[in-house]
Amino acid sequence: MTSPGERMRAEIDQQPRVFADLLAAHEQIAAVAATIAERRPRFALLAARGSSDHAALYAKYLIEVLLQLPAGLVSPSTTTLYGAQPDLTGVLLLTASQSGGSPDLIEVTAAARKSGATTVAITNTPDSRLNSTAELSVDIRAGQERAVAATKTYSATLLALYLLIDAVRGGTGRDAAGLPETAAAALRDSEPAVAEAVRRYRFAARMVTTGRGYSLATASEAALKLAETSYLPARAYSGADLLHGPVAAIDADTAVLAVRGSGAGGAAMDEVLEAVAERGADVCAVGSGETASAAHRIPVPDCPEELAPVLEVLPVQRLALELALARGGDPDSPRGLSKITRTR
Amino acid sequence: MTSPGERMRAEIDQQPRVFADLLAAHEQIAAVAATIAERRPRFALLAARGSSDHAALYAKYLIEVLLQLPAGLVSPSTTTLYGAQPDLTGVLLLTASQSGGSPDLIEVTAAARKSGATTVAITNTPDSRLNSTAELSVDIRAGQERAVAATKTYSATLLALYLLIDAVRGGTGRDAAGLPETAAAALRDSEPAVAEAVRRYRFAARMVTTGRGYSLATASEAALKLAETSYLPARAYSGADLLHGPVAAIDADTAVLAVRGSGAGGAAMDEVLEAVAERGADVCAVGSGETASAAHRIPVPDCPEELAPVLEVLPVQRLALELALARGGDPDSPRGLSKITRTR
Repeated sequence: MTSPGERMRAEIDQQPRVFADLLAAHEQIAAVAATIAERRPRFALLAARGSSDHAALYAKYLIEVLLQLPAGLVSPSTTTLYGAQPDLTGVLLLTASQSGGSPDLIEVTAAARKSGATTVAITNTPDSRLNSTAELSVDIRAGQERAVAATKTYSATLLALYLLIDAVRGGTGRDAAGLPETAAAALRDSEPAVAEAVRRYRFAARMVTTGRGYSLATASEAALKLAETSYLPARAYSGADLLHGPVAAIDADTAVLAVRGSGAGGAAMDEVLEAVAERGADVCAVGSGETASAAHRIPVPDCPEELAPVLEVLPVQRLALELALARGGDPDSPRGLSKITRTR
Repeated sequence: MTSPGERMRAEIDQQPRVFADLLAAHEQIAAVAATIAERRPRFALLAARGSSDHAALYAKYLIEVLLQLPAGLVSPSTTTLYGAQPDLTGVLLLTASQSGGSPDLIEVTAAARKSGATTVAITNTPDSRLNSTAELSVDIRAGQERAVAATKTYSATLLALYLLIDAVRGGTGRDAAGLPETAAAALRDSEPAVAEAVRRYRFAARMVTTGRGYSLATASEAALKLAETSYLPARAYSGADLLHGPVAAIDADTAVLAVRGSGAGGAAMDEVLEAVAERGADVCAVGSGETASAAHRIPVPDCPEELAPVLEVLPVQRLALELALARGGDPDSPRGLSKITRTR
């Protein structure tokens, strides 16, 4: 017997150690990166579901900005429902899946490999079917994830993708070297601010999460994690899209969780934060950037912007856990969640 | 002075006529398609914001399935915030924007053209800056849109994209020929079912919309339209993603609007509908497909699956309009909505 949230809490706390283990295994990632670099892909596709889909969104930014390659997210159903079989010669397909067991991702990967793509599986289960389907594999080495809500496998997937993409351009992952320590600090130092956010949002009826650039991944993962564990109806918007229309639905009854980092994506959030604060929303800013428009702030240590999503998600996971407990739930036994997507 | 919702209602009702006008102008579309076909693009990118982003999602399916080309949605901020300038030789970039005035889309299009892409602007404003920035243009010919919520420009963008992509593969748009009549029937015949849905959802506190395949665009547009006009917190999920996790947040207090067409995407929705109905949600199915798991159904005339989104959205727009009015709002003056995205 475990107490409510015990598994999720343990796995959140393991993350600094998981990052250290993954960094120590840079060689396996560098080998895969060398093959990718040799093939000189003309563009990249990313396939994933659930939390991993937010990791894929993060990787899309990394690939476009760091590798200067266009990248797109795959809609598995064009293959699984409609049988599309485009020529993928010279294309890089990265498939991220904690379990490596999702039938639709296996099917997409098999079809892409057959169509000429360089296929790479990023999983936490090196003997999975997805791994044997893909030509190349990266093991995120997060250890078994027993909690139903993905935490350490999400952040480890982010870091693995960063290290892989950085290595494709010849990098050694140097910027990420300090992450285990910074991650420990991020978890430790955000505790009082997370506790205050739990008090503020315990009775919230709905939440909007928002971010831009790399940190859109954090906003997306925050909405999913809160919806999964706290049953809080939360939806994520790119800051740019939010201003375009959905800001109309934001009022004093809306809790807004905004990722405000210290880079270009964070700076571009200021006009978004002002607009939602003007509408009377309760705004909580997560990240390393300062902002005048948030009523509450959950600080995150500063780091290069392209690595910020790895750190920003840590207090967000804590918030999801503590909020679920405060609202009387058990994030380790959420209603209707299963660990592997079985959809085709 | 106009009465609440008068503009939006008028423009919803104009759609059969708008479709007829666009079909009559097939020649302009065929000419653009011929240039695209000649260039034999190796893959496609789509750029858009707001409602047009859902049209882009629809086009992504069309391109992947009908043209057998991989396609991806652009994140404008990789260009506007981070200055990414990938080599886009042999790439097709379709940019959809009602106004043709969004600075970020203009910047993305200019950068892509400079980087070698074949750039096509799909707008309702042929003299816009986006049109002069792109090499090629398609005029969706929907006439001035005075309502703040996009309706006829959304459906006309869908149809223009269909006709364009169909013409690239040598089609003449034959399957779409009957759309003006079918659209009129869709609006007329769905009236009682829409009125009943308004009664059911007048006091709804939140809604989840869902669809798969081509109709994921309809589910996404439904959530945006409802959030914009009725301030109903609505969020869209692919049916596959919904089953993976967020289904946990669905209960008897959740209104679910599910697109259930008669093709492969619709059939794949049955397990989703069963899962949400099992959780006690009030499920309303929109579309031409029959289903046993919905408490309420808004029928849509049958048509080839790849054209269904053009019809499905019509009763959804009506629902957004009537629900906004029933909830005491004026969809023609929504709080905080502007017609052109100014974000960079």
